[in-house]
Amino acid sequence: MAAEPTAQELIAKHRPTLGQALEAIRTRAYWSPHPEHPKAYGENGSLDAAAGKAAFDALLGTRLDLGQPGTDDWVGGEVSPYGIELGVTYPHADVDVLLPAMKAGQPAWRDAGPEARAAVCLEILKRISDRTHEFAHAVMHTSGQAFMMAFQAGGPHAQDRGLEAVAYAYAEQIRTPEEAEWTKPQGKRDPLKLTKRFTAVPRGIALVIGCNTFPTWNGYPGLFASLATGNAVLVKPHPRAVLPLALTVKIAREVLAEAGFDPNLVALAAERPGEGIAKTLAVRPEIRIIDYTGSTAFGDWLETHARQAQVYTEKAGVNTVVVESTDDYRGMLSNLAFSLSLYSGQMCTTPQNLLIPRDGITTDQGPKSFDEVVADLAGAVDGLLGDDARACALLGAIVNPDVKARLEAAAGLGEVALASREITNPEFPGAVVRTPVIVKLDGAKPDAEAAYMSECFGPVSFAVAVDSASDAVELLRRTVREKGAMTVGAYTTSPDVARAVEEVCLEEAAQLSFNLTGGVYVNQTAAFSDFHGSGGNPAANAALVDAAFVANRFRVVEVRREA
Amino acid sequence: MAAEPTAQELIAKHRPTLGQALEAIRTRAYWSPHPEHPKAYGENGSLDAAAGKAAFDALLGTRLDLGQPGTDDWVGGEVSPYGIELGVTYPHADVDVLLPAMKAGQPAWRDAGPEARAAVCLEILKRISDRTHEFAHAVMHTSGQAFMMAFQAGGPHAQDRGLEAVAYAYAEQIRTPEEAEWTKPQGKRDPLKLTKRFTAVPRGIALVIGCNTFPTWNGYPGLFASLATGNAVLVKPHPRAVLPLALTVKIAREVLAEAGFDPNLVALAAERPGEGIAKTLAVRPEIRIIDYTGSTAFGDWLETHARQAQVYTEKAGVNTVVVESTDDYRGMLSNLAFSLSLYSGQMCTTPQNLLIPRDGITTDQGPKSFDEVVADLAGAVDGLLGDDARACALLGAIVNPDVKARLEAAAGLGEVALASREITNPEFPGAVVRTPVIVKLDGAKPDAEAAYMSECFGPVSFAVAVDSASDAVELLRRTVREKGAMTVGAYTTSPDVARAVEEVCLEEAAQLSFNLTGGVYVNQTAAFSDFHGSGGNPAANAALVDAAFVANRFRVVEVRREA
Repeated sequence: MAAEPTAQELIAKHRPTLGQALEAIRTRAYWSPHPEHPKAYGENGSLDAAAGKAAFDALLGTRLDLGQPGTDDWVGGEVSPYGIELGVTYPHADVDVLLPAMKAGQPAWRDAGPEARAAVCLEILKRISDRTHEFAHAVMHTSGQAFMMAFQAGGPHAQDRGLEAVAYAYAEQIRTPEEAEWTKPQGKRDPLKLTKRFTAVPRGIALVIGCNTFPTWNGYPGLFASLATGNAVLVKPHPRAVLPLALTVKIAREVLAEAGFDPNLVALAAERPGEGIAKTLAVRPEIRIIDYTGSTAFGDWLETHARQAQVYTEKAGVNTVVVESTDDYRGMLSNLAFSLSLYSGQMCTTPQNLLIPRDGITTDQGPKSFDEVVADLAGAVDGLLGDDARACALLGAIVNPDVKARLEAAAGLGEVALASREITNPEFPGAVVRTPVIVKLDGAKPDAEAAYMSECFGPVSFAVAVDSASDAVELLRRTVREKGAMTVGAYTTSPDVARAVEEVCLEEAAQLSFNLTGGVYVNQTAAFSDFHGSGGNPAANAALVDAAFVANRFRVVEVRREA
Repeated sequence: MAAEPTAQELIAKHRPTLGQALEAIRTRAYWSPHPEHPKAYGENGSLDAAAGKAAFDALLGTRLDLGQPGTDDWVGGEVSPYGIELGVTYPHADVDVLLPAMKAGQPAWRDAGPEARAAVCLEILKRISDRTHEFAHAVMHTSGQAFMMAFQAGGPHAQDRGLEAVAYAYAEQIRTPEEAEWTKPQGKRDPLKLTKRFTAVPRGIALVIGCNTFPTWNGYPGLFASLATGNAVLVKPHPRAVLPLALTVKIAREVLAEAGFDPNLVALAAERPGEGIAKTLAVRPEIRIIDYTGSTAFGDWLETHARQAQVYTEKAGVNTVVVESTDDYRGMLSNLAFSLSLYSGQMCTTPQNLLIPRDGITTDQGPKSFDEVVADLAGAVDGLLGDDARACALLGAIVNPDVKARLEAAAGLGEVALASREITNPEFPGAVVRTPVIVKLDGAKPDAEAAYMSECFGPVSFAVAVDSASDAVELLRRTVREKGAMTVGAYTTSPDVARAVEEVCLEEAAQLSFNLTGGVYVNQTAAFSDFHGSGGNPAANAALVDAAFVANRFRVVEVRREA
C-alpha cells in the first residue's frame, strides 16, 4: 500500500523543477514546465479535455466542502458571464474560529524549512496542473474569458506565476545559512566564538483578495509567495470568481495534509452577497500580509487602513502606446488590433491611449495621416473580428454590467472611429459579447483629458491626437506619473524618440515594449522572464514576481550562543 | 599628474572588498575590513590619533561649506554632551532648489549600473575609514559616547554596516541580468523571439533621518543602501548630532564629483532650532524612501503620513532578559553588568527588563533567591564601575536632559536595588555622567506594569519578579508582541525553558542571545553576521541589513523588442 508522500519525498520529486525555475529567474530566458496546448494533457494522471469538462460539470450545483473549522454557513451564487448559474456553494467561515486554527499549524510549517515548503508548493501546483482542463472551465465561467484564454492564462500561465513566486521565495530564504560559526580574533586573547542559528519565520496569516478577471493568474503569486515563506494563507475570492480559487484551496489542503502538515494552513473565506468581508479581514491583527488585485479605490483603502500588514496591490492604470513611426505598418496594425480585442480589453495590461501625432506618421507604406492611422486600425480590428466564431474565441464575454455600461458610455466621449458591435455566441446565448470601440480625442482639448486620463477598463481605447512626438512623450510621462501604467508600448523608427520614450519609462518605472508587430502583444507578460507591473508607479506597488515581492513576507530570527 | 579615479578604476580597486563582503553576508562568519584598534590607523593615507584629533579640532567654530545648491542660510548649534560648544555651522537648504538639483544627476547615476555605484560607495567608505579618528571625536561629542565606543561603533562598525548595505544592494540588483534573449517555441511555426533589457532604476530621492545616539551606525545602512540602488540621498541629521553626518555628506560629494557624477546626489538638510524640517521633507513627493531611527511616536507618524515613500523605521522597544538558571553565575552577572552599563544604557539594544522567578534561580553556586540575584547584579555593576576613570570610559555621558530626567524619575517606580551615582569626568567637567539604576518590580502587580511595559531609554533597568519560568516566557511574549524588542536574552540551563523562549522569539520575531557570559554582549550586533532588529515586531519594521532592506529601494524596468 502506497503511503502518502513525505516532505522528503516531495523534495526529491520536485528538486529538478525547482532548480530549473531558479535558473529561469536568473537568466530570464523562456521556460515553463506547464504545457500550453490542451492536447498535452491526459497522460501521467492529468485530465484530458473530456475528463476536465466532466469534472467541471460534476461540480455544478454541489457543495464544495473543504473541511474547514468554523464553517457556519454555505454561500455562493456565481453566474457565469456566459449565462450559466454555477450553483456551487462554499464554506462561510466564523473567522474567530478559523483564524486561530490557521495559526496552529504554523510552527511545524516554519520548522519544515524553505526546501520542504517549496516542495509542498510544487506538489500543489503539479496537482493543479493535472486538472488544468477542469480549471479552464472554472476560469472561463467566472471571468468570461474565452475557453482557450481561460485554459492558458488561467492554467499554465497562472501555474508558472505561482512557481515563479515559489522559486523567488526559496532563493530569498536560503540566502542566509541555517547556521554559522562566528570567530572574532582578539589579539593575544582567545577569540570570541559564537554559534548562530538563523530561521526564516513567517509574518503571520496572509490574505489573498482575488479578482474577477484573473482569479488564478493574479491570485497565485501572492498565495504561493506567502505559503512558501511559512505563512498560513486565507484566500478571499471575488464573489463572482470563487470556484477557481476554491478548487485551489481544496488541492492545497489535500497536499498539506498528505505531507503531514496542518491543512488549515490554507483556507477559503467565501462571503454572503454584500458582506464585504475583505474590509473586516484586512484589519484583523492576525493578518500580516495582503495581496490584492482590483480597483484603485479599494487598493488605496487597504494601503491606508491595513497598517498591521504588508500590502501588495495591483490597481488601475492608464496604459499608453506611442505611435510615432513604423517600418511595418501592417504588422503594427494587426498587433495592436489583437491587443485591443483580446478578452474584450478586460486586462490590466490592455492599451487604452494610442498617442498619434495629429500631422500623421511615417511608415513603410508612406506617410499616414492621423485619420488614416485610426481608420486603418479600426479596419484591422474589424478584419480580426469579422468572423463571429473567431471573434467569440478572442473576445470572450463581458465580465460584468459595469464594463458593459462603460463601453456604451464611451461612444459619447468623442468621435467614434470604430463602433462596438454586438455578437451572439451560439453556444452560450446568454453571454454578452461586444467588439471594442475606438474613440478619437484631441489631446490639446481640456475636456478630452478627463476621458483619456482615467482608466476605462474594458474594450475601449482612445486615439489621442498629439502635437508632436515630444508632446506624446510628455503626455506619456504625465500619464504614468499621475495615473500609473502596467504597460507602455511604442512604435518608432527614430532613435531619438525611442530614447526619449525609454527615458520616461526608466524615470517613471513603467514596463516598455517597442515595435511589436508579430505574435507577442504588449498586454502579455511571460513568467520567469517579464515583470508584470514595476511596483514603481501608481498602477501597482509591487511587481510580479521579483525579490521585493517575497523578501518581506518572512523575517530572519537569529539565535546565538557562545560556542 | 594623477587624474581623478574613474568609475572603472574604482571598480577594479574595490572589487576584492566587495567580493569578500558578498561572501561574508552569505556565510555570516566574522569579517570586517575596518580595523577596530585605534593604533591600526596612520598609514596608507589614514589619519592617526593625533592627526584625527587635530582635524576634529580644526572643524570647531567653522562653517562647513558643502557647496550645495539652494543654500539660503547657515545653521548649527551643537553642544557636546561633554560640555563643549562645537560652533560648526552647516548649510540650510531651500528645498525647492535643492531637491530638483538632487534629481538632475540621477539618470547618469542609474546608467552607471550596480557595480560602478557599489565601487563609488566603497570609495566613500574607504575615505571615511581613513578619517576614523576624526569621526570618533565627532561622534563622541554629539552622542556622548565614550571615546573608545565612539571610535569603534561610530567608526569601523558603522562603516561595516554601510558596506554590508552596499553588498546586499549590489547582490539584489544583479539577480536580474542586464539582458536576456527570450525564444518561445511555437510548434511548427517560427519561435517567438524577444530581446529584453533590464535596468535597476531608483525610486527617487531617499531621506535619511539621523538619530542623536548613533548618527553614523544607524545612518549608514539606509544612506548606502539607497545610494547604491541609484537613489539620490538627502541626509537630515538630528540637530544635536549633525557633524558626523555632515562630514559623511562632504566626503560622499567629493568622491561622487571626482568619479564624474553629480555631487548633489548626496546632500545635507540641516535645520534651524525647532524648525522640524523632517516632517516637511518626509511628505514631499520627491522623497520616495525614508530611513528613520528614533521615537515610536515620530516613526508611527512617518509610517502614517509619508505614504508616497517606502518607510524604514527603527523605533522604541522593551528589551527583556529571562534569568531562569545558569551554570556560570559570575559570568552571567559580569556580562549583564557590562550590558547595563555600556554607554549608560543609551542603546536601543540595552536590556531593560530582567525577568527573575520570585522563588529564585539555580546556579553553579547553588540556589539564589530573587533578592540575592538582584543584589549580586547590583554588586557586579558597582564593581565594574567602582573606578571613576573606568566608569567614564564605559558610561560616556548622558546624551540629553530627557534621559537624565527619566533616570531620576526611575527611582520612584519601585524599590531601588542599585542607586544611580554621579561621576565627574575630570577631562570634561561639563559631562553629565551617571551609573545605572536597578529598580525591583513585582510582575504580578498591575501598577508595576506601567513601568516595565514602557521603554525607559537610558541607564534604567527593572528586576521584575515573576511567578515561574513559564510566567517569564509569557511576559516575554506579551512584551515583544505589544512593545517590540530589538534584543532578547535568556539565561537557562533547562532545555525546556530554552525551547519555550526560543519558540516565543521565533513566533514574535525577536533576535535572541542565550547564556552570554563572556566578551559578547546582548546589546552588540556585528555587521555581516548578526541582524540588528528583525523587522517583525513593533520595535522596527526592518532589519539591518537584509535583502528586504534593499530590495524595494529600486525597481526593475524591462524594455523588450522583437529580436
